[in-house]
Amino acid sequence: MNQVSCGTSRIVGVRFAVYPMSDQFADIIKSALKQVDTSKVWMQTDDITTCVRGRSEHVFDVAEAVFVQAAKNGTHTVFNGTFSIGCPGDSEGDTYMSEDGVRLNKEASSQTEVEASTHFALYPMNNPDYMQVIADQVETAKEHSTFTKGVHYASRLDGSANDVFGTLEEIFVDTAQSSSHGHVTMTATVSANSPSQKDNKRND
Amino acid sequence: MNQVSCGTSRIVGVRFAVYPMSDQFADIIKSALKQVDTSKVWMQTDDITTCVRGRSEHVFDVAEAVFVQAAKNGTHTVFNGTFSIGCPGDSEGDTYMSEDGVRLNKEASSQTEVEASTHFALYPMNNPDYMQVIADQVETAKEHSTFTKGVHYASRLDGSANDVFGTLEEIFVDTAQSSSHGHVTMTATVSANSPSQKDNKRND
Repeated sequence: MNQVSCGTSRIVGVRFAVYPMSDQFADIIKSALKQVDTSKVWMQTDDITTCVRGRSEHVFDVAEAVFVQAAKNGTHTVFNGTFSIGCPGDSEGDTYMSEDGVRLNKEASSQTEVEASTHFALYPMNNPDYMQVIADQVETAKEHSTFTKGVHYASRLDGSANDVFGTLEEIFVDTAQSSSHGHVTMTATVSANSPSQKDNKRND
Repeated sequence: MNQVSCGTSRIVGVRFAVYPMSDQFADIIKSALKQVDTSKVWMQTDDITTCVRGRSEHVFDVAEAVFVQAAKNGTHTVFNGTFSIGCPGDSEGDTYMSEDGVRLNKEASSQTEVEASTHFALYPMNNPDYMQVIADQVETAKEHSTFTKGVHYASRLDGSANDVFGTLEEIFVDTAQSSSHGHVTMTATVSANSPSQKDNKRND
């Protein structure tokens, strides 16, 4: 962020954390990480967040897997992250761009049933048409049947974690591809097992 | 987000959640909310996040207060939110813009000692000079002596919750004022009482 110029690499990254609302939060996170294969991504964790970088399919694969493995036992768990492409500021992790496209965690994630509710927001940077880009991607979400409604500053998705992360990935990758050298970011708050009543009534 | 055109109001909003990593998370959040005066902001909560809107000083006052009240008893607690100005998409909450500037929670928040570590990212939309705007605001953070370093996709602040939220507010308000009709968003992940070792060694 303290870089004035953008890089040219199309490496994708996500800076995220997973929050299990439990006294055992540290054990739940450690156990989830043990069950996720992160060998195709660059990964670094500090005391606030974790950063994962590489090919888009592996970044989304790992993000979904960490969330699903942390949430699968029923604890109220939230994934909060910002996906980014187009402004890495350096080349760290670029070697991971040569990995093949086979997702290492998809099978395990798909076999784990976790219902997810999401608020996401898309930020195509330096783009005068960004509001139209966002509106187009809401249409994409509607095609996935995960779109519930717009809320202030965000859009809501509901469905299985698999469908929700699939929708987020398509929206992000579509937007990134349509702005070939552009900088695009997307925030997502993905929640499972909340004791609060779901506000998932559609407006339309 | 499913709006194609931006509004003209300069109302500020934040969509956020507070995550106490505890079996008692619901009680901690409810108790924190009881200790925060939210009468000068529009506020709506669903099962994923809470949205607060109004004058910038009250939005930051309430955000800081909820975090501080939730974290003050030592539970590992994280505030995660996106601040926004310039694209509300509607006029809901506009009546709160006529409130005076006296902060209702500042005294209580200042008297509560909570150390906070933060990753934040600034997104000035539709602005070809956005990377320079970001770089300028990092300089502002350095003047506050809360700035620790840049990380991938974000910048790190460390200090008291009071200093950290004060820095975030100045950065956000400065950026909003310098782009008089612009749409600006800022993400912040603010963590307290983490059992992980702080990665707060400065690079410079």
